[in-house]
Amino acid sequence: MTDSSSAPPVSPLTDDQVPRGFSFSAVRAGIKASGNPDVACAVAVPAAVAAAMFTSNKVIAAPLIVGQRHLERSHHHVSVVLVNAGNANCATGEAGITASQQCCASAAALFDCDAHAVFPSSTGIIGVPLPVEKLTAALPSLHAALGSSAAHLQQMAGAIMTTDTRAKLAATSFDVEGVTVRIAGIAKGAGMIHPQLQSAPPALHATMLVYLFTDAALEPAVAQDLLHHAAESSFNRISIDGDTSTNDTLLLLASGVSGVVIEGHDHETANTKADRATKLFCAALESVCTSLAKQIVQDGEGVEHVVELVIGGALTDADALRVARSIAHSPLVKTAWAGCDPNWGRILAAIGYAGVAIDPTRINISFGALEICHQGCLSPRFNEAATHDYLKQRDLTIHVDLGVGQGVCRFWTTDLTAEYVRINSDYST
Amino acid sequence: MTDSSSAPPVSPLTDDQVPRGFSFSAVRAGIKASGNPDVACAVAVPAAVAAAMFTSNKVIAAPLIVGQRHLERSHHHVSVVLVNAGNANCATGEAGITASQQCCASAAALFDCDAHAVFPSSTGIIGVPLPVEKLTAALPSLHAALGSSAAHLQQMAGAIMTTDTRAKLAATSFDVEGVTVRIAGIAKGAGMIHPQLQSAPPALHATMLVYLFTDAALEPAVAQDLLHHAAESSFNRISIDGDTSTNDTLLLLASGVSGVVIEGHDHETANTKADRATKLFCAALESVCTSLAKQIVQDGEGVEHVVELVIGGALTDADALRVARSIAHSPLVKTAWAGCDPNWGRILAAIGYAGVAIDPTRINISFGALEICHQGCLSPRFNEAATHDYLKQRDLTIHVDLGVGQGVCRFWTTDLTAEYVRINSDYST
Repeated sequence: MTDSSSAPPVSPLTDDQVPRGFSFSAVRAGIKASGNPDVACAVAVPAAVAAAMFTSNKVIAAPLIVGQRHLERSHHHVSVVLVNAGNANCATGEAGITASQQCCASAAALFDCDAHAVFPSSTGIIGVPLPVEKLTAALPSLHAALGSSAAHLQQMAGAIMTTDTRAKLAATSFDVEGVTVRIAGIAKGAGMIHPQLQSAPPALHATMLVYLFTDAALEPAVAQDLLHHAAESSFNRISIDGDTSTNDTLLLLASGVSGVVIEGHDHETANTKADRATKLFCAALESVCTSLAKQIVQDGEGVEHVVELVIGGALTDADALRVARSIAHSPLVKTAWAGCDPNWGRILAAIGYAGVAIDPTRINISFGALEICHQGCLSPRFNEAATHDYLKQRDLTIHVDLGVGQGVCRFWTTDLTAEYVRINSDYST
Repeated sequence: MTDSSSAPPVSPLTDDQVPRGFSFSAVRAGIKASGNPDVACAVAVPAAVAAAMFTSNKVIAAPLIVGQRHLERSHHHVSVVLVNAGNANCATGEAGITASQQCCASAAALFDCDAHAVFPSSTGIIGVPLPVEKLTAALPSLHAALGSSAAHLQQMAGAIMTTDTRAKLAATSFDVEGVTVRIAGIAKGAGMIHPQLQSAPPALHATMLVYLFTDAALEPAVAQDLLHHAAESSFNRISIDGDTSTNDTLLLLASGVSGVVIEGHDHETANTKADRATKLFCAALESVCTSLAKQIVQDGEGVEHVVELVIGGALTDADALRVARSIAHSPLVKTAWAGCDPNWGRILAAIGYAGVAIDPTRINISFGALEICHQGCLSPRFNEAATHDYLKQRDLTIHVDLGVGQGVCRFWTTDLTAEYVRINSDYST
């Protein structure tokens, strides 16, 4: 459960897996051109403890600015998460902030909570005014449709989709002294995916939204700390196109209904001080985050290959991450993958311009179990036909050993296909 | 002539424009699968003063390592430039260095010069041993074919092409007290184009090669200084795919045959100390470099739009350059250009994650003369139909004013088309 390399033990979502203390709903507000459900909410009564992370992009959408303010004013408690898809409410100036606040105020009146306890999110087209009237007009039916079943959470996951082809959900649970603690999450995102989430300043545009729910009890500071660590090894380790969105948002809500308290732990001393419940919670949170992160990559726009990069032998973990990002963002590497082409020279070149300390004569590269590059040259064991066959699979693992240190990193990315270009050059998007 | 924004006054190449003191040739050695000419040379008798810049990639092809050594040993003089296309001699280990040295030694024997006065270059496939025998077998016919006409220089420009669709040449001249000084250059490059040239350490792989010839007389240190400055505003300001090659090489040879001495100038005191000849030489060198850089971008793989980015109002010039590169490397921005889509939100997002100081509410963006984004929001003057029409042109200019300082940058890049993906995912490349 702690090994993010293997498939996380995420159960198919059943009613029993839905964290207690929340209800969900989704309806059509007429914001999406498709006419599909486009407004959704999650409600916690009483208010849940909240932790959030936002993109590091310096252009920040209105709902992220409003959401950040509301979390401060509410001392990190959230009663209602209000999400719309089809309009990002980004690059809309002061009017966009006012629009987001109006929606929150309307929701607060209807759901009987403080306006600061409403957390807004938007995803979709940028630079177009948010249709406040459509959104507020949909609030009564949103309120009427609330429910706590797996189907309700699934409807919320569907309504927040934009270019996604499928809803993304993950859930797991663990027992502490006979009491079950549940964690479940939903996510959307298929393009503009290179989250660079940070805890401090917010930022914004149109892509990755993730909402995590648990019935564990956490103090706000503990929730923020554990969320930060889970995001680092999951959402901050994926890239589809290298474009960091202006709207990326990751929110964790803890209802506390299970009664199991997660005390958190001191990362300075690693796991030695962590109690059993905290360890179990961290592993469960990481498994849900990793599952959702991988689902986002799997549903990437035009994706034909999903590639797990396993970087080792770097001077530091940070160096390993820079190498992974350099490979993951190289158009030449990504197009070679699209063509099932074992062109390891392009990978070597991307390593060379990653800006980290390397010794080209120590670099080994393998595709799956097939060694391609040995000490910076073509491997004597290179088997072109076998490698080409391996590359015909959808899910690939590429190992890079830099041979200069102990730094490691695991990263998930995709190929770059003509279909990705078609989707994103279509002048109706 | 000093304004790189306007088309440089480069003449069509005539015999009279070919710098004196050089001869050129190109022949078929059987390295390219196409059977086209693939080995070329430029010869200077006596040896020319040489200045060179190489990619900053830390994976470095054998010919760059050998070329760097030879320049040091020869005190920056070159008698023979020996180039092959079809094989990059990169990721070939010690054997690759030996192979490059063998070719240089054979050329030195035939052309009657010191082996250290031979400067090797290779471009093409990576990780495959250089076919030394084919290359050395072609040397006698290469020697026999030498000539100093424009046609000979053009043949060299053709032989160094790989995925290029046309040869790239530029030439200009100026007069100093009745004496004509000539500068001409050739270049190749169509993919893996994001040169990050530097004077100090070398690096390598398969893409941008540029050879500049002049009959002015320069000391090696002056040649290096002026080349560095010309490259900064030309080759280091272009990107096709953001992939920095392992073989990028820029070489300037000065025969001195015109008798006009270029003293150079102290950049600390700007142009005040520069003599008239130096000023004319710098302007001419910059115009040739800019012309070649733009020709490379125009011939980019699958390119349908060439975009000049004019960034202003940044805190520093370095910040302006980071913003330009962030926009130029965004797959979402580049695919929008391919679709003639005036999606300025993607540009705004790329500015936001460029990692420089910005104030989103001060950003203005124009496509040509059409304002799209005003103070971070949709411009009230935005005309979607006119903008879409403007974007149907092949050559575009996009102005970004960050509104926070005086930093500026001019940068040339391309769109990202399905044809680029097709070219680079074709499993025979």
